[in-house]
Amino acid sequence: MPAWLRAYQRADLPHDLVASFTLLVLLVPQGLAYALLAGLPPQAGLYASILPALIYAWLGSSATLSVGPAALPALMTATALAGLAVPGSGHWVMLAALLALLSGVLRLGLAWARFGFLANFLSQPVVGGFVAGSAMLIVLSQLPQMLGVQAHGPTVWALGRDLLAVLPQTDTKALMLSLVALALLLAGKRWLRPLLIQTGLADNTADLLAKAFPIVVVALGGLAVHWGGISVRVVGDLPAGLPPLSLPTLAPEAWLSLLPAVLAISLVGFVDSFSIAQSLALKRREQVDPDRELLALGAANVAAGVSGGFPVSASFGRSAANELAGARTQLAGVLAAIWVIFLLLAFTRLFASVPLAILAATIVTAVSQMIDLSLLRLAWRYDRRDAAVYLATLVAVLVLGVVDAILVGVGLSLALFIWRTSQPHLAVLGRVPGTEHYRNVQRYAVETTPAVLVLRIDESLYFANCRFVQTRIIALLREQPQTQSLLLVLSAVNAIDVSALQSLRQLNTALQEQGVRLHLAEVKGPVMDQVRQSGFINELSGCIHLSTHAAMQHLLVGNAEDYVI
Amino acid sequence: MPAWLRAYQRADLPHDLVASFTLLVLLVPQGLAYALLAGLPPQAGLYASILPALIYAWLGSSATLSVGPAALPALMTATALAGLAVPGSGHWVMLAALLALLSGVLRLGLAWARFGFLANFLSQPVVGGFVAGSAMLIVLSQLPQMLGVQAHGPTVWALGRDLLAVLPQTDTKALMLSLVALALLLAGKRWLRPLLIQTGLADNTADLLAKAFPIVVVALGGLAVHWGGISVRVVGDLPAGLPPLSLPTLAPEAWLSLLPAVLAISLVGFVDSFSIAQSLALKRREQVDPDRELLALGAANVAAGVSGGFPVSASFGRSAANELAGARTQLAGVLAAIWVIFLLLAFTRLFASVPLAILAATIVTAVSQMIDLSLLRLAWRYDRRDAAVYLATLVAVLVLGVVDAILVGVGLSLALFIWRTSQPHLAVLGRVPGTEHYRNVQRYAVETTPAVLVLRIDESLYFANCRFVQTRIIALLREQPQTQSLLLVLSAVNAIDVSALQSLRQLNTALQEQGVRLHLAEVKGPVMDQVRQSGFINELSGCIHLSTHAAMQHLLVGNAEDYVI
Repeated sequence: MPAWLRAYQRADLPHDLVASFTLLVLLVPQGLAYALLAGLPPQAGLYASILPALIYAWLGSSATLSVGPAALPALMTATALAGLAVPGSGHWVMLAALLALLSGVLRLGLAWARFGFLANFLSQPVVGGFVAGSAMLIVLSQLPQMLGVQAHGPTVWALGRDLLAVLPQTDTKALMLSLVALALLLAGKRWLRPLLIQTGLADNTADLLAKAFPIVVVALGGLAVHWGGISVRVVGDLPAGLPPLSLPTLAPEAWLSLLPAVLAISLVGFVDSFSIAQSLALKRREQVDPDRELLALGAANVAAGVSGGFPVSASFGRSAANELAGARTQLAGVLAAIWVIFLLLAFTRLFASVPLAILAATIVTAVSQMIDLSLLRLAWRYDRRDAAVYLATLVAVLVLGVVDAILVGVGLSLALFIWRTSQPHLAVLGRVPGTEHYRNVQRYAVETTPAVLVLRIDESLYFANCRFVQTRIIALLREQPQTQSLLLVLSAVNAIDVSALQSLRQLNTALQEQGVRLHLAEVKGPVMDQVRQSGFINELSGCIHLSTHAAMQHLLVGNAEDYVI
Repeated sequence: MPAWLRAYQRADLPHDLVASFTLLVLLVPQGLAYALLAGLPPQAGLYASILPALIYAWLGSSATLSVGPAALPALMTATALAGLAVPGSGHWVMLAALLALLSGVLRLGLAWARFGFLANFLSQPVVGGFVAGSAMLIVLSQLPQMLGVQAHGPTVWALGRDLLAVLPQTDTKALMLSLVALALLLAGKRWLRPLLIQTGLADNTADLLAKAFPIVVVALGGLAVHWGGISVRVVGDLPAGLPPLSLPTLAPEAWLSLLPAVLAISLVGFVDSFSIAQSLALKRREQVDPDRELLALGAANVAAGVSGGFPVSASFGRSAANELAGARTQLAGVLAAIWVIFLLLAFTRLFASVPLAILAATIVTAVSQMIDLSLLRLAWRYDRRDAAVYLATLVAVLVLGVVDAILVGVGLSLALFIWRTSQPHLAVLGRVPGTEHYRNVQRYAVETTPAVLVLRIDESLYFANCRFVQTRIIALLREQPQTQSLLLVLSAVNAIDVSALQSLRQLNTALQEQGVRLHLAEVKGPVMDQVRQSGFINELSGCIHLSTHAAMQHLLVGNAEDYVI
């Protein structure tokens, strides 16, 4: 029994009950819509709202996170399976379940090996660009539904080509319905909350009602079709009853072709969910543990895989609404899952008349807020290269598809980091008059002496930059030919690898032949330990000093007591 | 006309002349042997000794570097073409020339784009492990010749399997010849130089004669076969005359399949040649320019490609001997190329009786000294992870082949660097009593105060480590609950990317809610410029201080004048 259930207090029950109905009201349209986005029959979205949510409530660490159908994994499922099966077919359904199962097992494995740190390699620009690109792709993928035609494809090109071909078959009734729904949803998003507050409702209640507005639009659409006799594509009759429990086929060739998508879904889903959990926890002063979250998400996906679902993840919108509705514990999520079971057992006929075009309109309005342009603006102002990574990842999602885009983004951001460190900043230092501080001559009014060149190296020394640094040092020495001592200030050098050590050795020998002695200052403890072992200290033509000031005292005043080693 | 030729002084001529004959004596057996190693007819090695050497003398910056046939590119040619054609066939010869041409063109392109820096990404452990692995592979590849059988293969497995299959066909005469030659060569290497010095020769002369000893062994072998009538596989009749000038076929599919090998040969050949040129230049106080070297090597390989040769590179052995023999200018290399032309025009019959088994023995003794175990020992002592990269690259050469090994080595060393930086060292600082210096509490006897936690972050902050750092900081704060101010000393933080900026923002907000103020000290100029632009400074609950000491004065004494911004 999980800790929250053992410590459950009866006073929390009304709060969790209210929150559970809020969750239900959001889960139903989202479940149906995201299942369609993933190319699955609508009930798969309801199936994915039950077991995964229960498992997460049992194992996860966040009290209010809503795990279940979500836009990103649904899109990634659709693009991963494109070409492997026909959307909606039995084989497609099986592959989607397999995808959930495998990405669950992979996450369990990563959690067991404590590999949660892998998520750290997805930088904010990569995640931001990825989510924004995915949201655009999702909006585009809903166009066929909104036009009443059928078109699929994992990239903008494929989807656009398909769509253009079937454009003449546009169903005017579906188009009209979706446009009306879109107008209602957008109007509701902008004006409903202030309107309700004007009528005297409390802020929170108004907020909640505004968030639940999509189900009203969906219901109105269903009623219009049912009583108005409009003939458009609808959800249709769903099989009543609980999801069938079964293990997807485990043919090895299916595994292998899905592996890249499994990896991408696992990492993206984890980073996304963990970020949501963290931001919720920060508000409630809770602690979330990455490896425990990875475990809970892994188990939730395994559960989705064996119960007719598809890859699940945390939904930011539902989690925030759950929080807002006053959820106190994980019981809110558990109760919501139970209400979904009731729906499946007795009320599936309620959804039969819901038009697909209106579900598509709810997806479009929901995902369009996933595009976080504020991060792009910040990155643009802060560092154009970070903004470039954001945009490259976004374009890669649209042009190459979601799986390759992750590789492009991670590869690009790592390459950028290596590129930055391979051309380090070197600063010539001088003394801030009257102090023991030494600063960049180009930024501060400082004192220098021609006999000593004081250089601060602003990067760890390793194979990719040691030749660059050596060349720059030689060039600086040529500009200052009276130099008798070169003092390297290593306060910013956090490591020296063996290639850089050899390069320093070579520099020491070459300078010694030219009558210039090499001194080091502010060598960090861990670096000092390594350098001491290598024997380089005995070869060094100069000394190693505790501080730049001590070194300068020694070099200029000749105060020999003031240096170490 | 190159600068060295315009400034040529007659006094240098005798020195260059002597050196040119030394080069010739080394070039002939090496040329024949490396051609065979590359799976080519012997004359290809002589062809590759002419035009490339002339072109390098014209364009290169080193006076004594000997560019021509070399062990590494010969091995890489053999392994790159394995499976694409039959060794020794016309197609193989054409592909080898194409390989030289393409790797030449690629290097010209890299030189034009000033991409010489790419070579920096090959760390010393990668190059060391690569050369050692290649030397082992070369020794193994010479076993068939020494046993008088035929076996080929790009990896240890392929070669070993082939070799085992043909082992019963071992030719006893070839085996005897190669064992005698090997014994002579090894004895000569160890004892000839001291013996000659004992007989009264000058050190340098003794050294040179010892270096030239392989041609004596080869000549003895040739005479033994010619007059002794031993029937073993010999070099045979070479076509007399100059190399045919022709462009290799440029079928696109041939290009594409060779591309990975072209890239590997270009990079490895460049790094190898440039390192040799640099070590020679250091002795002579010359300057070598990486982009000019890349250009000269590129042009030399294009020349090899159109004159019946194969990929060429600098040879360390020949360059060192050239230096030792007193070469003053590039004329030594030019003259040696001219002597090779004479040989080809009139004296090809001289080589007809040289046994292949003896050429193989000269290769084995030559390359065995390429295995630089001192670097491995140093790396092992200095940092086990660097030693692991050396060993992994070595094993990759043997098991995966030379092209993939480069990828493994570079990938591994970059991954290691990223891994190191993703888990940075954090040091809690205290004041060295009576000074303005702050040092690690675990290494120095320093003074601390419970109200201020002073932390030095020993790494640039970026996406891969900002979450790790945040977690560590929270943990350290929990250990010291009386903390009112957290002072981050950023002297070793050379960059903060946008992900890390967001993480600092989050930390600042979270700490503020817990009543802890965040201060920064020793922020570097370039980092400060960026942070200032982002607006983070206005959000910061504390201040930014010029130095750790100034910050502590401010925090403890409340001396408000002592801080910036």
